[in-house]
Amino acid sequence: MSTRQTFTPLPAADFSRAFPNSRKIYVEGPQGVRVPMREIALSAGEPPLRVYDSSGPQDVDVRAGLPQRRRDWIVSRGDVVEEPRALADVGSVERPMPAALAARTKTRLRGTGPVTQLHYARRGLVTPEMEFVAIREGFDAEFVRSEVARGRAIIPANVNHTELEPMIIGRHFAVKINANIGNSAVTSSIDEEVEKLRWSTLWGADTVMDLSTGRDIHETREWIIRNAAVPIGTVPIYQALEKVGGRPEELTWEVYRDTLIEQAEQGVDYFTVHAGVLLRYIPLTVRRVTGIVSRGGSIIAKWCLAHHRESFLYTHFRDICEIMRAYDVSFSLGDGLRPGSIADANDEAQFAELRTQGELTRIAWDADVQVMNEGPGHVPMHLIRENMDKQLEWCSEAPFYTLGPLTTDIAPGYDHITSAIGAAMIGWYGTAMLCYVTPKEHLGLPDRDDVKAGVIAYKIAAHAADVAKGHPRAQAWDDALSKARFEFRWQDQFNLSLDPVTARAFHDQTLPAEGAKVAHFCSMCGPKFCSMELTQQLRAEAAKGMEQKSAEFRKRGEVYVPKD
Amino acid sequence: MSTRQTFTPLPAADFSRAFPNSRKIYVEGPQGVRVPMREIALSAGEPPLRVYDSSGPQDVDVRAGLPQRRRDWIVSRGDVVEEPRALADVGSVERPMPAALAARTKTRLRGTGPVTQLHYARRGLVTPEMEFVAIREGFDAEFVRSEVARGRAIIPANVNHTELEPMIIGRHFAVKINANIGNSAVTSSIDEEVEKLRWSTLWGADTVMDLSTGRDIHETREWIIRNAAVPIGTVPIYQALEKVGGRPEELTWEVYRDTLIEQAEQGVDYFTVHAGVLLRYIPLTVRRVTGIVSRGGSIIAKWCLAHHRESFLYTHFRDICEIMRAYDVSFSLGDGLRPGSIADANDEAQFAELRTQGELTRIAWDADVQVMNEGPGHVPMHLIRENMDKQLEWCSEAPFYTLGPLTTDIAPGYDHITSAIGAAMIGWYGTAMLCYVTPKEHLGLPDRDDVKAGVIAYKIAAHAADVAKGHPRAQAWDDALSKARFEFRWQDQFNLSLDPVTARAFHDQTLPAEGAKVAHFCSMCGPKFCSMELTQQLRAEAAKGMEQKSAEFRKRGEVYVPKD
Repeated sequence: MSTRQTFTPLPAADFSRAFPNSRKIYVEGPQGVRVPMREIALSAGEPPLRVYDSSGPQDVDVRAGLPQRRRDWIVSRGDVVEEPRALADVGSVERPMPAALAARTKTRLRGTGPVTQLHYARRGLVTPEMEFVAIREGFDAEFVRSEVARGRAIIPANVNHTELEPMIIGRHFAVKINANIGNSAVTSSIDEEVEKLRWSTLWGADTVMDLSTGRDIHETREWIIRNAAVPIGTVPIYQALEKVGGRPEELTWEVYRDTLIEQAEQGVDYFTVHAGVLLRYIPLTVRRVTGIVSRGGSIIAKWCLAHHRESFLYTHFRDICEIMRAYDVSFSLGDGLRPGSIADANDEAQFAELRTQGELTRIAWDADVQVMNEGPGHVPMHLIRENMDKQLEWCSEAPFYTLGPLTTDIAPGYDHITSAIGAAMIGWYGTAMLCYVTPKEHLGLPDRDDVKAGVIAYKIAAHAADVAKGHPRAQAWDDALSKARFEFRWQDQFNLSLDPVTARAFHDQTLPAEGAKVAHFCSMCGPKFCSMELTQQLRAEAAKGMEQKSAEFRKRGEVYVPKD
Repeated sequence: MSTRQTFTPLPAADFSRAFPNSRKIYVEGPQGVRVPMREIALSAGEPPLRVYDSSGPQDVDVRAGLPQRRRDWIVSRGDVVEEPRALADVGSVERPMPAALAARTKTRLRGTGPVTQLHYARRGLVTPEMEFVAIREGFDAEFVRSEVARGRAIIPANVNHTELEPMIIGRHFAVKINANIGNSAVTSSIDEEVEKLRWSTLWGADTVMDLSTGRDIHETREWIIRNAAVPIGTVPIYQALEKVGGRPEELTWEVYRDTLIEQAEQGVDYFTVHAGVLLRYIPLTVRRVTGIVSRGGSIIAKWCLAHHRESFLYTHFRDICEIMRAYDVSFSLGDGLRPGSIADANDEAQFAELRTQGELTRIAWDADVQVMNEGPGHVPMHLIRENMDKQLEWCSEAPFYTLGPLTTDIAPGYDHITSAIGAAMIGWYGTAMLCYVTPKEHLGLPDRDDVKAGVIAYKIAAHAADVAKGHPRAQAWDDALSKARFEFRWQDQFNLSLDPVTARAFHDQTLPAEGAKVAHFCSMCGPKFCSMELTQQLRAEAAKGMEQKSAEFRKRGEVYVPKD
């Protein structure tokens, strides 16, 4: 096998090189919102196509951070206070925080009452955040409000994440995708993580989870949030565990609570909380092929067994809600007992936890906290629907957020594909957000190529789901590309691809000449065999002659059977 | 982005380097059949896993061809005659056929009555071919016979393809995949095509279609068939078109008939025949976004319009059956009007042709000819099921053989993924064989990397479908790999992957040390956070303590709620 070519030698996340003939535009709306879109210019008099854009402001100095466009919206609501940072940290001694970021780090906003989008929505208020997502998706702002009020959609938007371009997660909206980044004890640096954020959102990640577990966990997160136009999610138990030396049984409510406040103050938009892992569910995992595969789930399980009691996540759930409603951090109720293999899918442990997630969802709603539910994992195709159905029923239609699911276990190295299959299906069934899986899943830490491969596979799954669900804007993209293909507008076809540079490079490999980019054939069939070209020739004849005749006959009630 | 590493630097299709710790074994059965399996040796006392093997005899000189294992089975049935080749061709002057292959090329077998597996099955005969596939899949030979007799499965097996290892295509058996190879007018050589055959079957292609359209079309095919352990399919209209200088309107029944005989004599196992493209259906494509995208379909459409009559494929369909039953060539009834875009899916043109495919299926069955039906194409997820349902109904449950379908059009460069989603779903719904799509689809000719990427994506889709359908042998593979994963048997996990070398290389990228291959953690979470390791620790405690207690309580009819 020859050495694989790489077709996007981008030195960094670079919008204009990644998307030739695209430009970023802003659609203005009520309350001063300016909603980014990517506009793809086409040839031959075709109108440009506008597509959803998650890449965020470009050409921004990482050391300065993104503009704080949400700050006025938040402050003008009059229900937050600005106060000195409780657990302030403006970088380490060896690596001080740049002045611009440090300035933002000194004070923090906190609600005096609930400051959640759910709270506003229930009171009938259409916030700028709701206006923003309404324009972004092509829905009415009142519809957005009602979906948020109903709990069927969330807008993860911490009051301290003033750099955010709001987005919505709910099954009546476009299916979203999440990319995971994060250093681990083994490898990677802060700069790499910020670049992974920019890289993954460039290709289409709608939210990013920072799963860092290593050193500099606080500082890494600060840089990420200040440079993130997308919501940032975390699993706070990871940092809490660092604080107790990595020994799960030494975790306490106090350590965890302080960690939640610390991260809420930084601006984390959603927390994965594995509060549904109850003591009595743990024995249900013992006979599984792959036991507990969630990191958070296994940490909590270990704590529960060591203390022989329910976790502080469960017993202090209302206290957690109190913290989250003061910053508008959304819950991502973790599925700590999700199946880690086909063999364990849809088992008693998994569904026991899901029922508890439902109870917790309603408790969070009582506290005006936004909620989504995490789901599996590894599930064969015939068991996927049941996951969706039960989640809708048991969790009262809160948004579902699944990891894949992977539909087979036999392809490590290709789990972006095994899982894109399940992700597309469950997205169609109603899952609101899909957590990506990269080719490195189960094997190693994803590099830039892997992150991109995972994001593209999941953009495919999400878009396929949007088309199947009938999202009003989805199919226009497919149609624009197909029309370009049929009309041999090669450059338009490349530029309309999720990955234009790779599409063009693949064409170049067989037919590098520039002339081939306007040819009425391609390398697959060659000039004589091109079905598209033949069809175009047919059209003229068929359109006038045959169609007219067959219409005539149909009018007379006869089937048109040509003479043989 | 860094240069992409290639992890399978195989100079050629090499079984032992592609599959470390695997060996090819042969399971013996009645009538002297010896069925190949790949046996994967595992560590830690785990029994080896036997998996389906399509790679064919290894270490065979391409110039000598594969052993003719089927010849005795065929000749001993006493219903074929050996006769001199009608359209003999043993290579070109510049490039003479090697002596060993030329010897096989001089004479050809032909039936004196029908010599089809369908014919034998209907007469109650269990052929060696049926015994072979029964062992290969773990079914009873009588069940195989009854499915073939019912028309619900086919065993494509031309009497002149004596090198074949028989396989079965039917919805109660494992889902199969087809890889396309073939030179085109633009590029590629005979040697490359034979190597593509070996390469694609090494990774798991169950049949291979030779779609050559360029020079040396006959000679290329001869080399391919003599070296193919899998059934070979073709689209004879391509070669017929070459014979009339590439002008569709100059095609005649006589040219086509001679082409069929020529290819049947060579040993082609199935023919794609676009006989369902009727004159009155052509106007139905005029308002489509992408018209007619099947090469064969557009050739026939052009002929029909030029002559204003039904094609010779349709009017001579019974004559075609007469040829095919004399060699046991199976029909793959082409879908010349399949949709080429999401916009055109499930339209009137497509379904009109499908109804006609059904009529033709029953005509072929009357002549004892085996039949499968080709299907789309580009279909959004919510319209896939309708394709399967209508095909089953209208085509009387003949096997369905689909191209993907692609579930969105927006990702040229990644259509192995857009289509693996649809392929997995339709495979689960009952499609018997999936025609692969490579990353180069719509853009260029696939190279070795693309062929492998397409085959692996489709093995994933087919296996996911087998698991969902409940094929009795499918999930054992997932379970073996998951168990290895949970027990940190890294080498076993790699070796059980569809692509062991890539899986291992991905692990090496993050943790290259050999010691990491026995470590009880991986690079994703690091040693402290490993959920698998934590779970293993939990098991000991949980298994004895908790489970016992909770069982006690359950016995007493109480729910076990631990004290908080």
